[in-house]
Amino acid sequence: MASLSLLRQNHFFSATLPTRPKPKYASPPARVQMSLQQNAPTIAVVGVTGAVGQEFLSVLSDRDFPYSSIKMLASKRSAGRHLTFENKDYVVEELTAESFNGVDIALFSAGGSISKKFGPIAVDRGTIVVDNSSAFRMDENVPLVIPEVNPEAMENIKVGMGKGALIANPNCSTIICLMAATPLHRRAKVLRMVVSTYQAASGAGAAAMEELELQTREVLEGKPPTCNIFNRQYAFNLFSHNAPVLPNGYNEEEMKLVKETRKIWNDKDVKVTATCIRVPVMRAHAESVNLQFENPLDEDTARDILKNAPGVVVIDDRESNNFPTPLEVSNKDDVAVGRIRRDLSQDGNQGLDIFICGDQIRKGAALNAIQIAELLL
Amino acid sequence: MASLSLLRQNHFFSATLPTRPKPKYASPPARVQMSLQQNAPTIAVVGVTGAVGQEFLSVLSDRDFPYSSIKMLASKRSAGRHLTFENKDYVVEELTAESFNGVDIALFSAGGSISKKFGPIAVDRGTIVVDNSSAFRMDENVPLVIPEVNPEAMENIKVGMGKGALIANPNCSTIICLMAATPLHRRAKVLRMVVSTYQAASGAGAAAMEELELQTREVLEGKPPTCNIFNRQYAFNLFSHNAPVLPNGYNEEEMKLVKETRKIWNDKDVKVTATCIRVPVMRAHAESVNLQFENPLDEDTARDILKNAPGVVVIDDRESNNFPTPLEVSNKDDVAVGRIRRDLSQDGNQGLDIFICGDQIRKGAALNAIQIAELLL
Repeated sequence: MASLSLLRQNHFFSATLPTRPKPKYASPPARVQMSLQQNAPTIAVVGVTGAVGQEFLSVLSDRDFPYSSIKMLASKRSAGRHLTFENKDYVVEELTAESFNGVDIALFSAGGSISKKFGPIAVDRGTIVVDNSSAFRMDENVPLVIPEVNPEAMENIKVGMGKGALIANPNCSTIICLMAATPLHRRAKVLRMVVSTYQAASGAGAAAMEELELQTREVLEGKPPTCNIFNRQYAFNLFSHNAPVLPNGYNEEEMKLVKETRKIWNDKDVKVTATCIRVPVMRAHAESVNLQFENPLDEDTARDILKNAPGVVVIDDRESNNFPTPLEVSNKDDVAVGRIRRDLSQDGNQGLDIFICGDQIRKGAALNAIQIAELLL
Repeated sequence: MASLSLLRQNHFFSATLPTRPKPKYASPPARVQMSLQQNAPTIAVVGVTGAVGQEFLSVLSDRDFPYSSIKMLASKRSAGRHLTFENKDYVVEELTAESFNGVDIALFSAGGSISKKFGPIAVDRGTIVVDNSSAFRMDENVPLVIPEVNPEAMENIKVGMGKGALIANPNCSTIICLMAATPLHRRAKVLRMVVSTYQAASGAGAAAMEELELQTREVLEGKPPTCNIFNRQYAFNLFSHNAPVLPNGYNEEEMKLVKETRKIWNDKDVKVTATCIRVPVMRAHAESVNLQFENPLDEDTARDILKNAPGVVVIDDRESNNFPTPLEVSNKDDVAVGRIRRDLSQDGNQGLDIFICGDQIRKGAALNAIQIAELLL
């Protein structure tokens, strides 16, 4: 698949970085232990040929996620393709209602309409669905979970409880933002958050990444850029996020940050505004976040809190101007935070500015979903 | 010069844009009328071989700026080069103290240390210096001027008054931000402003633009990127602005936005915070700006105010998701504003979010300086 080669091409990512101090990443996550392989769950990956679907497989493998069998599911168009995963050959099957018979956990990333149609079907057949689409995120009966942030929201849902359930994976921008903001929120209570994003092509799928690469080649050759996915030049340019704009002037991507934050923090009063922008970067998002707190929080304490936060790495070297970049978090699990400083526009220590980078496909999607699946075991 | 060809290569800019609605730009500026050519001022361009120096010449020509003679000045390294300007051949001269004899207006863009050394020398010889560096911006005796915003700051300085003077051109990010924020500030008084920037390569000069292009070619070919200017990969990446970081955690670029806004608005109480980020875009900056007002200002009124603001064009079409992009303002005079919406995180109409794009070399530097020079006549 074209998408796979692009997603893994080293030259877009850290491998070609010039020598600079390597950030200290947190230790690899503790492996899930299963005493008996026959107790391992049966898994289905829905949308396996997409960018996130492929990353589901990478993450399952990287984390030694236990499974007794795995079904590779996709649309009719992709059915019949061959895949190799952990030295075993698979044929991609067409997604149907029958696909979920005997499946314990289904990881969905095939778009909202597929989730809306097949999510409830899977649940009826006793499958626990971890859904990466926005279809059920704001449904009050569906937990919306970042495992480092609110695992308690899904504490009653387990494999083996004899019934299906839906769990929603938050939007990528929300996950990346809250990975850094939550540890500070727990200490000082965030009253208001102003977010500006710098979002990668990957959020629009593998085809968007391919178009950014193609356009860049074309522009460098003096040719008009091919505009199939975004209908405008993306190479050497940036633009307001392509999600539909709502009557209030916010686009849907921005409203996800507003609403999902309230749900995940279980705090309907937290005030959030966001401006979401696509930048010509391949697969990691960046976010500039301004925080207002109820209680004072000085920048040194904030830095210590973030250094000790799970899944977060602090890169904040003022002297050498070394701060997080999307390139260095690409293909990494941890979210990187830097530019941690007292906000001069607020009194005392009532506010901070921070800058966050995180891999959109990994922690922004696939990794978070599989961490949710780990909580189910 | 390599820089010139790069600056003008069409394929980076609007010429290759796919067909989309062309924004309505404001009418060309009124031409400066001089009754007698012999009364036209003598001009010197200091740093004429740089990106901004070259743009000084373009803008002088585009605006039919009157001059009786023009000196092309640069460092010893560039002296002796030949230039053609308005069908006349020039030899670039080495900048010395004597260069300013008989010069009415000197446009400086050769870095802070050249300005610090030669600015006062030029003033002593009766020259009015319009300086694009940061050397004198915060000097309380030097006006810091955006002609659409605070022309009154330099109202006593004119060519022909028989003595020299210094006038500072604000930093590019400040100019672009305040072109849009000032008309709203005049109506509703800005109390606090949270800015996140998306800054182009051009702010670091022509060599940085060349490095971005070179790195992009290298990365696409799978080669390690050449890192001379920025010491890191810029292609398909972004990073915290390369200006030195101060003990308060802000970098110098960010503090310019904070301090210059206070000086230009003559309002030492306005609260500003900024996070300045470089993105892989060639020559136009974007800024996401969150505003808090003393008095309520609804979004429709704000849009009308901006539509009528000089030097500002509104691109704010929610239905077709058409908002400002750096590409379409490249090589343009006007600053474009869109995403104008009530900030949901503030009460009532006390706040707005807006998104601004402006050409860094043109309105962010050369055009603003030459508009200042026009006020001197």
